[in-house]
Amino acid sequence: MRTSIATVCLSGTLEEKMHAAAAAGFDGIEVFEQDLVVSPSAPEQIRDLAADLGLGLDLYQPFRDAEAVRPERFAANLKRAEAKFRLMNRLGTTTMLVCSNVATAEIDDDEVMAEQLHRLGDLAADHGVRLAYEALAWGTFVDDFEHAQRIVDLADHQHVGTCLDSFHILSRGWDPAPIEAVAAEKIFFVQLADAPLLHMDVLSWSRHHRVFPGEGDFDMVGFLSHLVRAGYDGPVSLEIFNDAFRQADVHRTAVDGLRSLRWLEDRTRRALAGEPARDRLQLQALPPVDEPGGYDFVEIRTGRLGETTRLLHQLGFALGGHHQSKEHVQVWVQGPVRIVVNNDVAHDAPTEVAALGFEVADPDTALERATRLAARPVPRTQEPGEQVLRGVFAPDGTEIFFCRRPGHGVPAWLGEFGADEELDPASLVTGVDHINMAQPWQHYDEAVLFYTSVLALAAQPAQDVPGPSGLVRSQVMRSSDAAVRLPLNVAPAAAEQGSFVGAAYPEHVALACTDVVAAARRARRRGLELLPVPQNYYEDLIARFDLDEAFVASLQELDLLYDRDADGEFLHFYTGTLGTVFFEVVERRGGYAGFGAPNAPVRLAAQYRRTHAHG
Amino acid sequence: MRTSIATVCLSGTLEEKMHAAAAAGFDGIEVFEQDLVVSPSAPEQIRDLAADLGLGLDLYQPFRDAEAVRPERFAANLKRAEAKFRLMNRLGTTTMLVCSNVATAEIDDDEVMAEQLHRLGDLAADHGVRLAYEALAWGTFVDDFEHAQRIVDLADHQHVGTCLDSFHILSRGWDPAPIEAVAAEKIFFVQLADAPLLHMDVLSWSRHHRVFPGEGDFDMVGFLSHLVRAGYDGPVSLEIFNDAFRQADVHRTAVDGLRSLRWLEDRTRRALAGEPARDRLQLQALPPVDEPGGYDFVEIRTGRLGETTRLLHQLGFALGGHHQSKEHVQVWVQGPVRIVVNNDVAHDAPTEVAALGFEVADPDTALERATRLAARPVPRTQEPGEQVLRGVFAPDGTEIFFCRRPGHGVPAWLGEFGADEELDPASLVTGVDHINMAQPWQHYDEAVLFYTSVLALAAQPAQDVPGPSGLVRSQVMRSSDAAVRLPLNVAPAAAEQGSFVGAAYPEHVALACTDVVAAARRARRRGLELLPVPQNYYEDLIARFDLDEAFVASLQELDLLYDRDADGEFLHFYTGTLGTVFFEVVERRGGYAGFGAPNAPVRLAAQYRRTHAHG
Repeated sequence: MRTSIATVCLSGTLEEKMHAAAAAGFDGIEVFEQDLVVSPSAPEQIRDLAADLGLGLDLYQPFRDAEAVRPERFAANLKRAEAKFRLMNRLGTTTMLVCSNVATAEIDDDEVMAEQLHRLGDLAADHGVRLAYEALAWGTFVDDFEHAQRIVDLADHQHVGTCLDSFHILSRGWDPAPIEAVAAEKIFFVQLADAPLLHMDVLSWSRHHRVFPGEGDFDMVGFLSHLVRAGYDGPVSLEIFNDAFRQADVHRTAVDGLRSLRWLEDRTRRALAGEPARDRLQLQALPPVDEPGGYDFVEIRTGRLGETTRLLHQLGFALGGHHQSKEHVQVWVQGPVRIVVNNDVAHDAPTEVAALGFEVADPDTALERATRLAARPVPRTQEPGEQVLRGVFAPDGTEIFFCRRPGHGVPAWLGEFGADEELDPASLVTGVDHINMAQPWQHYDEAVLFYTSVLALAAQPAQDVPGPSGLVRSQVMRSSDAAVRLPLNVAPAAAEQGSFVGAAYPEHVALACTDVVAAARRARRRGLELLPVPQNYYEDLIARFDLDEAFVASLQELDLLYDRDADGEFLHFYTGTLGTVFFEVVERRGGYAGFGAPNAPVRLAAQYRRTHAHG
Repeated sequence: MRTSIATVCLSGTLEEKMHAAAAAGFDGIEVFEQDLVVSPSAPEQIRDLAADLGLGLDLYQPFRDAEAVRPERFAANLKRAEAKFRLMNRLGTTTMLVCSNVATAEIDDDEVMAEQLHRLGDLAADHGVRLAYEALAWGTFVDDFEHAQRIVDLADHQHVGTCLDSFHILSRGWDPAPIEAVAAEKIFFVQLADAPLLHMDVLSWSRHHRVFPGEGDFDMVGFLSHLVRAGYDGPVSLEIFNDAFRQADVHRTAVDGLRSLRWLEDRTRRALAGEPARDRLQLQALPPVDEPGGYDFVEIRTGRLGETTRLLHQLGFALGGHHQSKEHVQVWVQGPVRIVVNNDVAHDAPTEVAALGFEVADPDTALERATRLAARPVPRTQEPGEQVLRGVFAPDGTEIFFCRRPGHGVPAWLGEFGADEELDPASLVTGVDHINMAQPWQHYDEAVLFYTSVLALAAQPAQDVPGPSGLVRSQVMRSSDAAVRLPLNVAPAAAEQGSFVGAAYPEHVALACTDVVAAARRARRRGLELLPVPQNYYEDLIARFDLDEAFVASLQELDLLYDRDADGEFLHFYTGTLGTVFFEVVERRGGYAGFGAPNAPVRLAAQYRRTHAHG
């Protein structure tokens, strides 16, 4: 499948956008007119740069308000178009997007529009240009693709075809199935955009909230399947207007975009299994997804070894050993939970979750899939005889490793730490319940797409949690059997609060245990100061859940928090924060499926008071 | 009018919110339950703090899902309520907000709801509490205030009344006029929130996009007038759920909120002129607004005197003189434009627009109005015999001075610079055309309210301008005769681009002139390097406007930009940026009313290339 991206999706200069698109692996770009207008590079220089980068200039866009106008205006439009055709000749671009008229349309007559498109087509043909007519969702007279197609058919000109944009079709609720009836040679271009289902006016929705395929709620596989069945074999291009993308680093946006297309391509190929049509668009398959069965390890990188190991010990971990060749790396174990502590950093480096190891069936396949999805592999060295760890960087820089499922017992790499014991069956802690990762707000969609496409984690309904410095969006990603739960916390933009945000929205590792009371008592005995929970909270708890006062007093004694849903109960406590990481210990009773979200404001407020204390 | 604010409007801890509300001048607050739950302060401590701060605890909120439920659930609700009544007794709060049921409503029967509210009222009465029942816009069975009122009337209990919230009424398009028919003693509480007219679902609209009265599109004066006519005399309280407010500094949000109420109070009082009802709510008037007739001066504060005065000279300014007592202050003049250059800062201080002087009829009245609107006065010293300058800080920290209109000739303060000459009638530059001020995105609403309420500038329709690092919202504020034009530019949040944003979205002073070609030639002669405009722009200009090529060549020779609307033409050029300021020189031909917005992307791209050059 030929992949393309409109320059309007990306931040920076036209030249920066082109470099980023090429580096991410796109085959071509759409040149957005304004990006060229504000560039000091001549069209010939852009053409040469594209050639050097191996990028096609697949489309020039947009040409607006061409048709449905009175004759004198149409004459002016022809003149305006001719200047653009000459420019396109200098660029070496042969397809121009013509949007249905929104500003100057006066004549609501298909014959007139077709005739004007025909005459524009004559002029285009003189310059070797083809016109791709697109029905904007808010076009004055033409706002659906079937209407645009009828006009193009009426125009009956070799140089006049259509452009199909998933947003303009799906946002209006038009049925995309009739695409299959369109003659393939009349589809000159295809643009893809996904979007969350928002109840707002379609123009604002389109201008600000489009996302890459797979990041929204539209059926993009279904849409592309219709195009495949129609026999389309041209570029499939991303055209995304999104406020966050406009501000984000151009290289990561480009990578995010290419990932979305590769994933869509793979899913569409699978959806069309057995249909010969899919060969026409040359849909490529990805290696199969290898859903993780659990956490193999968590790596904490810290400049403060003493504080970190003290906290681990307080939580019940024992030192498993030191790595045989990596001098500053040790492992702490408790039951099936393994925390690698990496002290190979400066003393003042922040304490952070540096890496996650996921148990998968076949690490090689998982890595292959991830790199095909444009994830960057983690460079790693090992001594002869040591385990090879395969991993990639997540969008936030966390290293994601694919580790072979150990079957019974402990993973082989523990041997490198001299830690070859069996699992302790009596351990209070029985696993990693979840790991909460903080994400910058402008990379939220990218993170969700990464974990969905690379690890087949599914996004659960998102929730807003109020904190003292703004709303925090909590987006849980989960494997199908819930063995892996990964809540992503998206902190507010918070220009004002500056560095405080990092400390107020730290990441955390939540440990599952069978007896949180015993775990809390042990932690207290070992000197751990739990995050304090206010008296008011416990009074509210009694009122809210009609709980027994003695039970609540027992919670309060240990700073335990409580939640309940229809299927069970949730008891948990938090530690203080080291750098940007803290720990939580949770006990699920019955089938409780949540994460104690009603208690998150208590935690956020307590953390805020610790980092920001005045008043 | 008694002013109140819900703690949910503000960021920080409950204690911080209370301090900020008191400091801004509110009479009371609504205690949002969750703010109390997460606080380590006991209810008695909050009560004492409120007393110390002179704040009333006007409302406890919210109590949810009380009514329209089956008997067994209602029994649990009574128990839940009693715990809250006891808590309110400890707080010393006597009114509780009861929202119409959204989660557990099962019985759609007014009699049942009334009977349950009556029984809840009995229990409340035992604790000296009153219940204010509010129809949420998305209530399951009760979503309009008239329905809520009918149920309250049916309940017929001294301790059961209503709470009227402008958002819940106006967002649904309910006619607020029937408020006047409600018995005043049954209106227990009033909450005000304004909102921009957005086409989205009402729950998201309410939770994220409420703004203070005067910052949105609702008719708040009309709404408050109905309450006044009903005879309401209780607190008027702000309840605003807004993502930006949640993140903003708590003190400035509180000030913004109080300003909105004071301004609303004044406008409502004027709207009700002659109606005796207004005395019941004790609506206070503000001093009359003094609309500015022009710019008296612009003050640039800079650590780089040489660069700044060189640029001013290149633009045609002459040194008017040095201040007699302020050693590091000089004035540069050109026709009626006066730029005060203040060098009384460190050498590495950024060059910035520090102050604006506006010509008004009566500076004392203007200052009095501004301070009554919670603006902080600028502290200033002067020697005996020197002019007293009266001013306040705008939300972004710019000093806004109110200067007496000089009639003919030059203002008296110029004498302090030894510059008592007459105006130069032959000056190319004829005034300040506009001043473009950069605003952090989270204070956009606050800035608009400030300039509207203090200086009677009116907000024009906002526009989004695409730049290489995101969309910039351009919000023009304008006096009624356009003598003062103040576009506010709201830069994207742009966490990623960091410090670059300050340089990429600088402020600017635009000078009006009668001959921009002559001004550009003079500037070139004096060595000014104008902001470069790409060749592609001029080629596009010819295509877009069908302009004469020779004319466009003459523009290009001088890096002039061009725009046209139905009423005239606009020619302009930009200088490079000093610190966070640059200059623009504009010539308006005919009745052109805009600001060259289509050319802003060219400028943003050129500035981006200068500060961020790679590729």
